[in-house]
Amino acid sequence: MADAGQGMATDIAEQPTTYQRILDESAALRDVAREIARRDVRHVVLVARGTSDHAALYGSYLSQIRLGLPAGLASPSVVSLYGVHPDMSQALVIGVSQSGRSPDLVEVLDSARRSGATTLAVTNAPESELARTAELHVDILAGPERAVAATKTYTAELLSLLLLVEGVRTGTGAVEPEVERQLRRLPELAATALAGHDHEAVAARLRYANQLVVTGRGYAYATAKEASHKIIETSYLSALAYSGADLLHGPVAVADREMPVLAVVGDGPGGAAMTEVMQRLRALQADIITVGPAPLPGVQAHIGVPAVDERYSPLLDIIPLQRLALSLAIGRGEDPDRPRGITKVTHTR
Amino acid sequence: MADAGQGMATDIAEQPTTYQRILDESAALRDVAREIARRDVRHVVLVARGTSDHAALYGSYLSQIRLGLPAGLASPSVVSLYGVHPDMSQALVIGVSQSGRSPDLVEVLDSARRSGATTLAVTNAPESELARTAELHVDILAGPERAVAATKTYTAELLSLLLLVEGVRTGTGAVEPEVERQLRRLPELAATALAGHDHEAVAARLRYANQLVVTGRGYAYATAKEASHKIIETSYLSALAYSGADLLHGPVAVADREMPVLAVVGDGPGGAAMTEVMQRLRALQADIITVGPAPLPGVQAHIGVPAVDERYSPLLDIIPLQRLALSLAIGRGEDPDRPRGITKVTHTR
Repeated sequence: MADAGQGMATDIAEQPTTYQRILDESAALRDVAREIARRDVRHVVLVARGTSDHAALYGSYLSQIRLGLPAGLASPSVVSLYGVHPDMSQALVIGVSQSGRSPDLVEVLDSARRSGATTLAVTNAPESELARTAELHVDILAGPERAVAATKTYTAELLSLLLLVEGVRTGTGAVEPEVERQLRRLPELAATALAGHDHEAVAARLRYANQLVVTGRGYAYATAKEASHKIIETSYLSALAYSGADLLHGPVAVADREMPVLAVVGDGPGGAAMTEVMQRLRALQADIITVGPAPLPGVQAHIGVPAVDERYSPLLDIIPLQRLALSLAIGRGEDPDRPRGITKVTHTR
Repeated sequence: MADAGQGMATDIAEQPTTYQRILDESAALRDVAREIARRDVRHVVLVARGTSDHAALYGSYLSQIRLGLPAGLASPSVVSLYGVHPDMSQALVIGVSQSGRSPDLVEVLDSARRSGATTLAVTNAPESELARTAELHVDILAGPERAVAATKTYTAELLSLLLLVEGVRTGTGAVEPEVERQLRRLPELAATALAGHDHEAVAARLRYANQLVVTGRGYAYATAKEASHKIIETSYLSALAYSGADLLHGPVAVADREMPVLAVVGDGPGGAAMTEVMQRLRALQADIITVGPAPLPGVQAHIGVPAVDERYSPLLDIIPLQRLALSLAIGRGEDPDRPRGITKVTHTR
């Protein structure tokens, strides 16, 4: 497998240019944001599967924190299995899907639209059934993805959702000047994240691990879930993902000196709230690897990432973790472009 | 550790009498349900941590399927870490917590109440801060729990949420006659579930496993999550929990002949939707153990449970899985009454 992971490596490397493209071509997205700002939306419901579910989780935090709206992820099976059509008339219902082709998501958006919701599809496939079913559509502009394991479509979903929420927040579709300044730095910061090599030592360290715990709080919880998912689907480790708070409510019992723990600890409220979690993990003698702008005392390994406001960190922190998944898979003799048992487009009902 | 797990065994064995007590003493709960039915609730937000989070997931399915209301689980950190107070004025906000003492949940209920939500605490502690903070309270009447790993308080939360949703559905606080008939059978069916021994062979089979996948769809997803949690916190396996649909969107790649998979497959739409999941798992040669009223062809082991409508199955299916966690922990030399690293009441912010 001389070319194992070439597709995934190329997808990962395209993230800075994808960010630049989304920022340069955001006129259509701004129109969608302005239109949503006009509606009387009282709560936000997001629906997604797999990797896109973690982008949806980020969208849920953004909607709550930046718009002050209740927001949460929906269970598609309520519609697709139980045939129930909840009254979504006051909701913004957002379907997030790279392919736009999973029938259960299409059904949820169709049901929501019939009940009077404002419906939006966020996809990499403007001609897809999901895009056609929703009233509004945002194209994430990531271009064709080569590997089965999603990378650039994930971060393109994150940035699209961020621009969307910030555009709804101002009411004009444009973002606040300070946000604009932060976003303009994003392609370069992503390139910096791509230039690092810290993940290589961690991949070597995890060569014979079968298990892993991945944790983070607040905005970083989406990063923890997506990192775990990426490692599961490329390297077949049993990677448990928990918010730092949920970890303390029971699952922390798995931690001992045989258990590697990958902790995403950034600057800001989410990172600060990890202090207690880190203390507990150290007391249990877990093998701790941190991801963040600065190494923490008493940890075994660290993956550095650019220092940014927590709100933007999910767009950067995942990059070395995607590369970790790639290196780990190759080091274990797997081909992350073609993981066993899964295909690029998954249809579920 | 001659008495290892005695507390947990006693808690588990009390579930039939706890069900009977909740059904016999449901007058206060009916009043709460009738009061909620009077309010103009447009969506339901549930908030919980740990085991109670899985009861909240069941409550979310019930609210959507039986009340036709959008429902989802909230991230407490939006309020507790980021200091944001989303407008919950049209929401019923339900905090579910055995102890009623986690500060983050108290903060969310307090914030929701101030923004005009109908707030409800479902706890085993009527004098707790959560119960005092919410406008309405339901006591789950489980009595003191002996083990750190929650069992009877989980199922008491499930039954309380079921009675509540069914009482809101009729508008009177009482449940429909057909539901009443099903509920009356519950203590006896729980005793039947307790009399089985299928879990013992499975505990022996998993003696040397380090990993496990637990899966189910629809109502059974809550059972899968709680079974995984129970096994993680008592026996320290890396037990991944996925809805059957989410499993197919990537994580199924972990399945091979070294991976045990516990699949909850009942009668009804959720069970029927597992057909495709089971086919994929068989193709990957996973070591499949089913939990349901009847064994499926081509599986390696089976845990039988009473046949009931899917809506009631979470109240029964978890019982042999709690016993599996108990047997597994004892077989591995652990004491599930006192798992390492965790305590009965967890405070998170």
